[in-house]
Amino acid sequence: MDHRSSDNARTLPGRYYGSPEVHARESERIFRSEWLCVATAARIPETGDWLRVELEGDSLLVIRGEDGSIQAFHNMCRHRGTRLCSEAEGHFKKFAVCPYHAWAYGLDGSLARAPHMEGVDCFKQDDLGLISVHTTEWEGQVFVNFNEQPVPFDKALAALIGKFTRWELPELVPVHSTVYEIEVNWKLVIQNYSECYHCPALHPQLNRLTPFRDASNDLTEGNVLGGPMHLSKNAFSMTMSGKTCGLPLGDLEGPELRDVHYYVIFPNMFLSLMPDYALVHRIHRLGPTRSRIECEWLFRRDATEQPDFDPSDAIEFWDVTNRQDWSISEESQKGIASSAYRPGPYSNLESMIAELDRTYLHQLGEEIDDA
Amino acid sequence: MDHRSSDNARTLPGRYYGSPEVHARESERIFRSEWLCVATAARIPETGDWLRVELEGDSLLVIRGEDGSIQAFHNMCRHRGTRLCSEAEGHFKKFAVCPYHAWAYGLDGSLARAPHMEGVDCFKQDDLGLISVHTTEWEGQVFVNFNEQPVPFDKALAALIGKFTRWELPELVPVHSTVYEIEVNWKLVIQNYSECYHCPALHPQLNRLTPFRDASNDLTEGNVLGGPMHLSKNAFSMTMSGKTCGLPLGDLEGPELRDVHYYVIFPNMFLSLMPDYALVHRIHRLGPTRSRIECEWLFRRDATEQPDFDPSDAIEFWDVTNRQDWSISEESQKGIASSAYRPGPYSNLESMIAELDRTYLHQLGEEIDDA
Amino acid sequence: MDHRSSDNARTLPGRYYGSPEVHARESERIFRSEWLCVATAARIPETGDWLRVELEGDSLLVIRGEDGSIQAFHNMCRHRGTRLCSEAEGHFKKFAVCPYHAWAYGLDGSLARAPHMEGVDCFKQDDLGLISVHTTEWEGQVFVNFNEQPVPFDKALAALIGKFTRWELPELVPVHSTVYEIEVNWKLVIQNYSECYHCPALHPQLNRLTPFRDASNDLTEGNVLGGPMHLSKNAFSMTMSGKTCGLPLGDLEGPELRDVHYYVIFPNMFLSLMPDYALVHRIHRLGPTRSRIECEWLFRRDATEQPDFDPSDAIEFWDVTNRQDWSISEESQKGIASSAYRPGPYSNLESMIAELDRTYLHQLGEEIDDA
Ligand code: FES
Ligand code: FES
Ligand code: FES
Repeated sequence: MDHRSSDNARTLPGRYYGSPEVHARESERIFRSEWLCVATAARIPETGDWLRVELEGDSLLVIRGEDGSIQAFHNMCRHRGTRLCSEAEGHFKKFAVCPYHAWAYGLDGSLARAPHMEGVDCFKQDDLGLISVHTTEWEGQVFVNFNEQPVPFDKALAALIGKFTRWELPELVPVHSTVYEIEVNWKLVIQNYSECYHCPALHPQLNRLTPFRDASNDLTEGNVLGGPMHLSKNAFSMTMSGKTCGLPLGDLEGPELRDVHYYVIFPNMFLSLMPDYALVHRIHRLGPTRSRIECEWLFRRDATEQPDFDPSDAIEFWDVTNRQDWSISEESQKGIASSAYRPGPYSNLESMIAELDRTYLHQLGEEIDDA
Repeated sequence: MDHRSSDNARTLPGRYYGSPEVHARESERIFRSEWLCVATAARIPETGDWLRVELEGDSLLVIRGEDGSIQAFHNMCRHRGTRLCSEAEGHFKKFAVCPYHAWAYGLDGSLARAPHMEGVDCFKQDDLGLISVHTTEWEGQVFVNFNEQPVPFDKALAALIGKFTRWELPELVPVHSTVYEIEVNWKLVIQNYSECYHCPALHPQLNRLTPFRDASNDLTEGNVLGGPMHLSKNAFSMTMSGKTCGLPLGDLEGPELRDVHYYVIFPNMFLSLMPDYALVHRIHRLGPTRSRIECEWLFRRDATEQPDFDPSDAIEFWDVTNRQDWSISEESQKGIASSAYRPGPYSNLESMIAELDRTYLHQLGEEIDDA
Repeated sequence: MDHRSSDNARTLPGRYYGSPEVHARESERIFRSEWLCVATAARIPETGDWLRVELEGDSLLVIRGEDGSIQAFHNMCRHRGTRLCSEAEGHFKKFAVCPYHAWAYGLDGSLARAPHMEGVDCFKQDDLGLISVHTTEWEGQVFVNFNEQPVPFDKALAALIGKFTRWELPELVPVHSTVYEIEVNWKLVIQNYSECYHCPALHPQLNRLTPFRDASNDLTEGNVLGGPMHLSKNAFSMTMSGKTCGLPLGDLEGPELRDVHYYVIFPNMFLSLMPDYALVHRIHRLGPTRSRIECEWLFRRDATEQPDFDPSDAIEFWDVTNRQDWSISEESQKGIASSAYRPGPYSNLESMIAELDRTYLHQLGEEIDDA
């Protein structure tokens, strides 16, 4: 298939953007089978540090263990099901203690102490550890997978492996994060990110820095899709001013500093690489027509330690851009929900969306019927 | 049938006032088959003027075209379904331009411009105009019909034709409008309007001006129902003071100025005619137990141009009356939703409701089973 | 069965804490079959006094009649179903008059007056009284039963009869009441009340007054469950200070004044007896995962008439304790709703919950399958 001429591709039928049945099918085939990005590992640097992650209706604790590795557990006591932690993040000295009856769990999830359970026949301490979820780390990002036997990350997302080494992403630290909740099916968020056909009308501030025609894609099939855009003559980063506000990432140099890169990592992550900082979007489903989006700005640690470090130029730029995108996506959601909606034709500038639709339908186990 | 002795008529069973199944059946048989009143034509006097109308979960654009006639279109771009307009009203110079990727539509709905679609095989410009909805104008009111082959307005609502000529309604202009959202099934709103049995207890201010016994009905069958009420000795219009605040409508004179007239135009309009102004209610379903009601006050244009014109006496009167009606209707809705509800007997003063129930069940394709 | 060794009992499967199907089955088998506590009779002392009670989606009027007895009726007019009363409580002189068309009902529920119904064949005045609900009074508490032929109270709740005579509860008057609405299945509220295993971790202020090990149960089977806890050396009541703030209830004396008593009266009442006051909790279902809880503080009338009477020490104590309990129960609800939840083992200190689960499943008509 030539992705530049998706001549016969049309938008998906309306049921994919709101029906509870499709939502449930997506749960099973995609969101409880694929790897989901949940956090930047640098947020929990020390043993015992933890984050609470709300994901697909479940609550997870992402914990840095004794050996320095990261594990994720359901935030749920094995006694009567109570949530262990209601705070967003914290630090366990040795144990996570349930606030109801004080059962205590070790950092590895094992049940360490359960008062007054002596003599209870059905109490098997070894079987009552926290329920774990598969976890992996890639370039400083933590991914989880609800599936009990997931396809290994390196195989599931093979296109990622080694692709971004030069940016030295594990060295970056998050300096800001914003959470948005919007009335939009998650796929509209991804589609919006996957084309710059809308940039002239919707993002004048962005289109000035990276004219929409200067986009190309170097990953055009499967579940990692995207490529570079070229900065215009007087622009040096994606900021309100067009100037950089951090130090160059990794060992980028020369012409490499003239490009930005945008990738969808299906199903729930966007990775945006500027010369001097990275942006991570994580898209979480809250319902068939509701999504929560976390956006995180990451810079080199040594840049953040400079006395005049000020990331606001970058933060404002993407906050403005994000809000433009969420707003138009909400207008799309409303129109698609109307009785009059029917699939429309994709332009040549939307070939990545057509490919995303294919990846999506394939993972969902459905055939493309609009070819 | 003698409408004065609906001796055996009882209220409808509870399922008609809240079940999603009845709501869906009403969509198909009534709200997507019958003519619905959506606006006063005088609100969009010039070519290119438009209103956004939210109706039955859809969004419509009602536009005055090049030839001066009014058309309605789904407010939905044919590219990726986005809503074209999020404002409530406005003016198009020549085109409606989609805010996402700038497809442009003419005032007649045709697709005039679609950037970057050259070479896309499935792009057929002539087939991608805005999706239209049947529209007609009657006495200055705009009606739409979602049905693709609707019964013509003159046949569907034959009782209206010529009935109100003397009031010269097309000459009136709206001077005020109020929108109410209430927790009530739409039929309770209509039933409430259709009898004055409740006036003594609920509307002392109204009952003084038009005692409830001085009501009669001149249209007593089918989908247009109502008739005159006689103003009491010292009352000259339906206002807080009982005085008029406009000029006499049309060529009314003498004893005609002593009556007010109330008509239900099924399923979604009330027309109330006072000697010096008209009132239009439009009832829109928001859900099985939720309705939005627009109330609009219309006066002769020359009256509104007089230096001392002040419609507040009329506006306050109906706002007070409306709120009394919505409040008691909400109490009815709650009671009907209780496990104890069962149909109760209509009085002789509620013959119009009994007839409305018949019209309703007939349009719904169900038999009356409480006779 | 030995309630002290419920060795094989586990918590109920997750569907019992949120599924609409279980909720509907509970309606039929429990909440519309069993006796529900709705009010303290002392709140409506005079003929014509009434309370509005919202219960299981219905609205009831609890009225003191001409003969001094209490009856309950659906708060719904037999004409067009309107709610008669929207206030929370009040006094009828002779009649309850519908605000819509002024039908009037006597204190015994009979239809006394219905204007303009003469000559309506299907109007049978004698059949159109308010719809009544079975009512009884026990120890000053009003219970209703939606079932048309309920098991008599004395038989349904035989364990209660004569059990609390010495406290002279009918002499008490409510001095304060607080209503809580929480995101919790009703059964979690009951389970929380039924064990003090959680007291050390959750209620330090309570555990000081009545150490959790000093609890025993004297009713351990069926639908009335509970028993005494012993006050610690320096505590004399359940208050912030540990001091009493009322006069001793009934003819309690000596060692009896050293105990507090806690009983679940299934399905919707808790009775807590302190030496100097009583506490009543009424648990009302608002949905599968939402409950409304009324908590009422009752003291001897002569105590309340003393010039220095101040119940705030008792009110604050239980308000603090209630909020701790609701908060942890909401955390349990969330955890049980997660995809990872599975039944966990009960400790020896939770034998009453195991028995409550049995009573519940028995009333629901289901077998225990986790033994
Ligand atoms: S629910 Fe966690 S210890 Fe009991
Ligand atoms: S959605 Fe309207 S132009 Fe693309
Ligand atoms: S609804 Fe009560 S009198 Fe009409």
